[in-house]
This record gives sequence, structure tokens and C-alpha cells, in this order.
Amino acid sequence: MPEFLRVTVWNEFRHEKVHEKIRSVYPEGIHAVIAGRLRADGHQVRTATLDEPEHGLTEAVLAETDVLTWWGHMAHHDVDDRIVDRVQKRVLDGMGLVVLHSGHFSKIFRRLMGTSCALNWREIGEKERVWVVAPGHPVAAGLGESFVIPHTEMYGEPFDIPAPDTLVFVSWFQGGEVFRSGCAYQRGRGKVFYFSPGHETLPIYYQSEVQQVIANAVNWVAPLGWPAVPVPSTRIGGGHRTEPLEDVPDTGVR
Amino acid sequence: MPEFLRVTVWNEFRHEKVHEKIRSVYPEGIHAVIAGRLRADGHQVRTATLDEPEHGLTEAVLAETDVLTWWGHMAHHDVDDRIVDRVQKRVLDGMGLVVLHSGHFSKIFRRLMGTSCALNWREIGEKERVWVVAPGHPVAAGLGESFVIPHTEMYGEPFDIPAPDTLVFVSWFQGGEVFRSGCAYQRGRGKVFYFSPGHETLPIYYQSEVQQVIANAVNWVAPLGWPAVPVPSTRIGGGHRTEPLEDVPDTGVR
Amino acid sequence: MPEFLRVTVWNEFRHEKVHEKIRSVYPEGIHAVIAGRLRADGHQVRTATLDEPEHGLTEAVLAETDVLTWWGHMAHHDVDDRIVDRVQKRVLDGMGLVVLHSGHFSKIFRRLMGTSCALNWREIGEKERVWVVAPGHPVAAGLGESFVIPHTEMYGEPFDIPAPDTLVFVSWFQGGEVFRSGCAYQRGRGKVFYFSPGHETLPIYYQSEVQQVIANAVNWVAPLGWPAVPVPSTRIGGGHRTEPLEDVPDTGVR
Amino acid sequence: MPEFLRVTVWNEFRHEKVHEKIRSVYPEGIHAVIAGRLRADGHQVRTATLDEPEHGLTEAVLAETDVLTWWGHMAHHDVDDRIVDRVQKRVLDGMGLVVLHSGHFSKIFRRLMGTSCALNWREIGEKERVWVVAPGHPVAAGLGESFVIPHTEMYGEPFDIPAPDTLVFVSWFQGGEVFRSGCAYQRGRGKVFYFSPGHETLPIYYQSEVQQVIANAVNWVAPLGWPAVPVPSTRIGGGHRTEPLEDVPDTGVR
Repeated sequence: MPEFLRVTVWNEFRHEKVHEKIRSVYPEGIHAVIAGRLRADGHQVRTATLDEPEHGLTEAVLAETDVLTWWGHMAHHDVDDRIVDRVQKRVLDGMGLVVLHSGHFSKIFRRLMGTSCALNWREIGEKERVWVVAPGHPVAAGLGESFVIPHTEMYGEPFDIPAPDTLVFVSWFQGGEVFRSGCAYQRGRGKVFYFSPGHETLPIYYQSEVQQVIANAVNWVAPLGWPAVPVPSTRIGGGHRTEPLEDVPDTGVR
Repeated sequence: MPEFLRVTVWNEFRHEKVHEKIRSVYPEGIHAVIAGRLRADGHQVRTATLDEPEHGLTEAVLAETDVLTWWGHMAHHDVDDRIVDRVQKRVLDGMGLVVLHSGHFSKIFRRLMGTSCALNWREIGEKERVWVVAPGHPVAAGLGESFVIPHTEMYGEPFDIPAPDTLVFVSWFQGGEVFRSGCAYQRGRGKVFYFSPGHETLPIYYQSEVQQVIANAVNWVAPLGWPAVPVPSTRIGGGHRTEPLEDVPDTGVR
Repeated sequence: MPEFLRVTVWNEFRHEKVHEKIRSVYPEGIHAVIAGRLRADGHQVRTATLDEPEHGLTEAVLAETDVLTWWGHMAHHDVDDRIVDRVQKRVLDGMGLVVLHSGHFSKIFRRLMGTSCALNWREIGEKERVWVVAPGHPVAAGLGESFVIPHTEMYGEPFDIPAPDTLVFVSWFQGGEVFRSGCAYQRGRGKVFYFSPGHETLPIYYQSEVQQVIANAVNWVAPLGWPAVPVPSTRIGGGHRTEPLEDVPDTGVR
Repeated sequence: MPEFLRVTVWNEFRHEKVHEKIRSVYPEGIHAVIAGRLRADGHQVRTATLDEPEHGLTEAVLAETDVLTWWGHMAHHDVDDRIVDRVQKRVLDGMGLVVLHSGHFSKIFRRLMGTSCALNWREIGEKERVWVVAPGHPVAAGLGESFVIPHTEMYGEPFDIPAPDTLVFVSWFQGGEVFRSGCAYQRGRGKVFYFSPGHETLPIYYQSEVQQVIANAVNWVAPLGWPAVPVPSTRIGGGHRTEPLEDVPDTGVR
């Protein structure tokens, strides 16, 4: 069994450079905080951002990535469709994907879900309680029945996603809403986990329970056979299987 | 309660014009056979085909469509992406969609599923048995435990789809394969049913059990509130809900 | 298509007789209020209660019941196991079952779920908001995005149930909890819907949205082919199928 | 991370003693073959059988069991209901359970499923092909698209189970049937996996792919936090949470 995963932490990394308020919370970018925790877990972590060539997600980088985490917000439309194609193909081939917060509207998440992924939101710094509704699920490991995020951006139902394969978390908001805040999916050979808490102007990604969830999610979405063995292209390709596996008498209608 | 649905039966309708063998089985097109059965059920049915302007799927037509059925095969790539966008939006708004056989590779099905929708296939005219694995599901109404399609095109696993919300049928093939041949999905406010039996050179769409399944599927995917009331745009739009529903004390962090 | 269902509304009907506070809210029993609404919908409704012979659920009554609704609270243990067996068998045969509020701890619900069905609760008359998370589901028909129950008993997560086939409602509580308050299941040929709002000392069953949900649930759990045709015993019985459907050469190992 | 699981392999162990044909295939009992493979994987394995006191499943044994595997056939009714209660409680608390072949009719499986678990069967030694329909699932690790069991007992649909949380395998039978042969469930904090191949008169449990699936299943159903840490009772108990987590103004209706 391998002792680490090869994780690529992706961040749009635009508003950290532009908004003083955001920079004051995440001076080196949101990706730096997420990557820091995953490195502390012993994973082999690299980061990639929107303004790098190919958004830092070259074929070579993705081929060496077991798990990709995704944070985007104000520039979803600037992500090149060819890179989205590439990431989707890798997920269907087995690469894990963890989508965070405003990544619900990213091209890659909408592509994999097939729905609008729309939701309701509100930014007044209200309280959120994240409840575990699937206590046996690996992404809930180490958590209690619920935990509090003192100040959050509200994300509220209806959330236009396919029903998750497993609903792991449901959030309560002080202002009256609920939200399916932890959603687990299998797509092709790859696993996808969406986790809604997190915001660019609030120090949510420094909170220990939030980091625990992200770390758990990275482990859960990891491909089978990870990662000492080079991950082969395992996509479910399909094809023309001209010969039957069992004898079929001549039907006269071929 | 309304007595009928407004159904649009879509067909690529290319190879019926080109291949004598196909024309001999479906002289007026596959859509004519499907529409015939649905009309006999009392529905208000129109047909639409690829080579019509906007593929026959104008905004006006879709606005008056409760359920769309889809048959395509050799020209999936000729379907305009803008029409795919339009159909997807209508499904998320509540329009039902029934996808047939080789429609598994249509742009609209792949768009709604988010996966490759690849499968294995073989054309030797072997036997297929369609087994009901969800006997209480409305799409299985009126069927026995299984039924036989004497000569079929084999579609085999692995089939690269999201796990269906409900798996209704599993097919057995003489040549040794199995296939999830009846798959029910909710996407947004719309329902989608995929049914794999059917082929352009075989008279499968004339078979009574197959027609029964398609008729059941059309009823099952029908939107709520159908259709005497004009169907409003009911898409789960989401948006900025600036004010909380419950009192939230000043948090000092807005 | 039939114009009505044969519904049996079951109530423990004990504390209405004992507690003045409860009698003042439901003077003729909770079943009378539920039955009243369903009769207004045109259904053929009878009621049955714990202290009747066989709890009012004889073989004959169940054979003529398309949908059973269940309300119990303080006397779950007084329900005869043989009657539970009988109801379970009928559900697996296709009879619909709607389980209300404290019925989560009834023998029949626990039997059908296979889990403890435990939850957390609190009675301080706090506010509940019921959110629709499956807007296209028939049990949500006619509802908006959410509705308020002004004073409720809190039922909170973790709720020890199998993940529902479809999660329709999630409730928000003023005191900080969330709850999966509307859960849809298929069991055998029968459908089961659990709906948590409702309490014996609060007039929740008089509220129009709550009555709407119960009415929707009764329609949704109705068996296929209902009910003009006598409902046959349709249980999935299984059995020794001695002869193969397809030719199997002598294997030498029979 | 622990290096092994504490596995208890349970076997009815009756017909191996009585039928010469069965003894010739499994001279030391089916449990011996299953335990042998799991020991080779490095797990700490004990066996338990029906005719031991408390069927070998004392409170002490279960408290030290991370994963229980179950094989029963002709004496399901001889299993004491109190032991079934005990096993069910441990599963809901987090112990994994792997149910094999004719264990579909065991009291513990029926208890956890809530349905009849009936199916169709035939014993003519026909061929079975086990197809992987969830290629990314851990229980399918190391397998190809399908594998063949040369001679098998047919188990056929309809199989009266709740729809699995994940359907991993579907089997094809030479005689014309299909079967959901690998079914994954979460129940409480515990995981349950049902795997249908295996028979007392056929050497199926010696086949490498079958052993691989059982070994995978044992790993997949293992409880979180396994097992160096003593597994606490983690059942979702529920209870009276008298005080709200958030301030609730006096409602006047307590």
C-alpha cells in the first residue's frame, strides 16, 4: 500500500491578487492553505492556477495526479474548454476530484453533473452547522455529530444537482436555510466529492474540521491501486465486440 | 387530471432514407412507428427530425412539449450544440426525456449524464431477455418477470453511466453479456429514462412489450402538473437571497 | 384509471383518550383529521385503531387496502408481531405505506428499514422549515421551495435509517438541527413514504401544506394498477425454477 | 493504519458433516477455505459455527470482530433470534458484514434488508459470468470486466431486496437469467456486502476471482478507525436533546 497520494491543488487565484480583504485572509492564495494541510498528511502535493500555461493542468501533470482539488469563483468562464475536456476524461479514467465551495459553478463540475448546479446564496457572515447524515462514510471520519462554522456564506436549497450517490453532510444556516453540503459521486472510474463550506473572505479553510473533511475527501476519491503503480488509462471505453463470448447459433439475421 | 400528454418524437431520420434494408423495416422512419403507438394511447404527438430547421426543435415546439423521445445513431455530431443547450434547459425545467437505443451516444444524453456513455456492442442478431429488477416501478407496469427480443443488437457492460436513480431492467444476451437496459434518472425538475432495446434493421419497435415500455416511460417522465395548465418555466434557478428568512444578529463580519 | 384509492388510516388512538391537552387538539383522534382530508380528495377511507380486534387490520381489511397510513407513539410495543408480519407482507406485495412522525419507532417501519430508526428530539415548540430538495418528486407537488411549521417537535440527525431511495424534504429547526423529513423507499413491490412533521399536542395535521404532503404521499405510494382491478398477490416470491429458459448442454455436474 | 482486520468467519457447518458429496468438496467446512484465504491476506481470523454455544457469537467474540462473514443454508431457522439481535446491533454499531450465497435467506440478512430476500434458483451446474458494473468500486479491485464460474447454482431475478446503495456485480447465466450478484449497503454505521456466487457442492470458494471478491469485500466493509483502536460502541442511538443548540425564544407552547 502506498504511503501518499499525488495531489494537485488547483486555484483560480485571481481575487487574492486584487482584493486587499481577500489577500489579508489568504496572502499566498487559498491553494497554499489547502496544500499545506495535505503536505502535512504526507501527500506529494503540487499547486496549479488559472493564469499558468494550460492553467497548470498539462497532460503530463494530470497523468501524475491521483487527486485534483478545485477552487474557482469569479473566472469560471476563463477556463479553457479543452482543459475541461482533459480533466473530465481523467476523472472518468479514475482520477479523484474534490470540488470546493464556489466550484459548484465551475465548468468541470457542471460538466460532470449534467445539471445547472445553481443554488441560493447570501453573504452576511451568519453561522453554519454542518451535520453528518452518513456517519459510516469515510469522509466523515473523525468528526462528531456536527460542527460549527462561526461565520459563513450561506448556500441554500434548492441545489440543482443529481441526487448524490451518498449524501454525507447537510448544513443548517442561522438565516433559515439548509443545504446538501457534502455530496459523494462515482463518475466513470473516478470519484467526485463536493464540499460547500469555504469562502474567500473568511478563514474557513484554516478551521480544523474543514481541513479534516478535505483531507478525508482526498483519501476517499483516490483511485483504486493508488499510486505506487503507474495509473493506467482505465477509462471505460467500450467498443465493437465482434465475437460472442458464448456460442450463438446462426440466427439468419446478421 | 389531463387525459393526454404533448409528446414530440424525435428521429435523426437519415439512414431510413439511405439504406434499403432499414427502409424496408421502417419505411416511414422509426419515429412513425413510435408516434403511432403513442397516438393510439391518446397522446397529442408530433414528430421532429434532424434535417428540419432547428432540427424541428424550436423554442415554440419545446415550450409545448411535455415529453420528448430521442432516436439518433449515425449523425449525433450533426446536432447543433445550441439545440442541445435548449433541450437540456427544458429537461432541467421539467420536460421528460426518453432516450432510445443508440441515443446513448447522443449529445443530449451525454450532456445530461456527464460521462462518456460508452458501451460494448455486437450485431449478430442474437437473442435478448429483458428482466424486470424493479417490479414496482411504473415503467415496468403490465410486464411479466421478463420478455424476449428474438433478434437484437447486443449492448454490453461496462456501460459508462452514472448509477441510475432506479435500475428498472437488466438484459441478458445469448452471447454472454448483461446490460443495464432500463435506467431512470431525475435531473433538475425533469425525468430521463434510457431504454436500450431497438435497432434500425430489426423490427424491435413493432414488438408489443417494447412499445409498452416506451408508453410507460413517456407517462413516467411526464412533468408534474401536466399538461392542461401551461407548464411554467420551473427551472431551479437559484440566486442571491440577500435577506435571511430568520433573524440573524449583526455578526460584525458582513 | 380509477378515481380513488382505498385508504386505511391507522392510529394508535390512546393518548387522545387520556390526555386532555391532546384531546383538545384532536378531539376525535389524529386519524379523524387525516381521514377527513383524504375523503375530501375523493378516496374511499376507513380508519383502524390499536384497541380494535386485530388492531383493525384483519386480512380482509388489508386485502381491500391500497394505501395504509400509520400513526403511533406511546404503544408501539403493544402492536402484535403477527399483525406486523401481515402488514409487512402486504407492503412487499404492493400496498403503499405512509409513516407519520413518531411512527419512525413503530415495529412496522423498523421492520421494513432494518435499522434502529433512532433520532434526536426536543419538545419546546420551536419553528421548523421544511425544504424541498427533490422539486420534481410527486410528493412535493404543489409546494413552494419551503414552508414553515410555526411550532413543532424537533426531530434531529443523525437519523438511523437506510439512505432513502429519494430524499424529498430536509427540515431546518430553530434550535440548530436539520432532519431528513421526507424519505421515499421502494420495498418489494410496495412504496413507503416517511414524513416527520406532526405531533399529538400541536395542530400540525390541520396545516394545509402538511395535509398536501400526506395527500401527495398517499397518491405516490399507491400500487400500480390501482384499484379498480382486484389487487393480486404480487409478492416477489421466488422459487425453484427447475428448467432453464435457454438450452444448457449436459454439464456433467448436476 | 492497522495492518490487519479481526475477522470472524461464520458457517452453519451442518451439511459438510452429513453429505458425502459436500464433504468431499469442503472436507473441513466452507469456513476453513474462506478463513484460509483471509489468513493468507494477513488478517486475524477466527471461525464460528452454528452448533457451538451461542453459535460461537458471544458478546465477547463480536466485540472483537471488525468483520463477520456469513454462510448458512439449510438451518437458518435454527439461528437463535437473540443472536440475530446481537449481530444486527453490532452491524448498526459499525461491524462489517459479508453475506455469501444462500445466506440471502439468513435471518440476519433478511432482518437488515426488511424484505423477503426471495429469489429464483436452479441447480444444473450451468455456467455463470460475473460482470463488473461499478468498475471503480473497491470490491471490484483487481478484476477484469467479467469472470467465469464454470459450474454454478443459478440465482435469478427478481431478487426481493432493497435497491443496493451500489450495485457492483451483475451475473449472466447460461440458462437465461440475470442476477444482481454483488450488492453494497450501508446500514447504521456498518457496511454490508452480499455476494451470491458459491455453493456447497461446487468448488467455487477455491476459485481465485471469488476469493479476491471476498477479500475485497472484507476490506470494504471494515469499520472506520479499524482496528488497532478498540472499536467503541458507535451506534446512532438518538435521544432526548432537551436543550436547543441555538437560542430559541420562549414560544409559549412548550
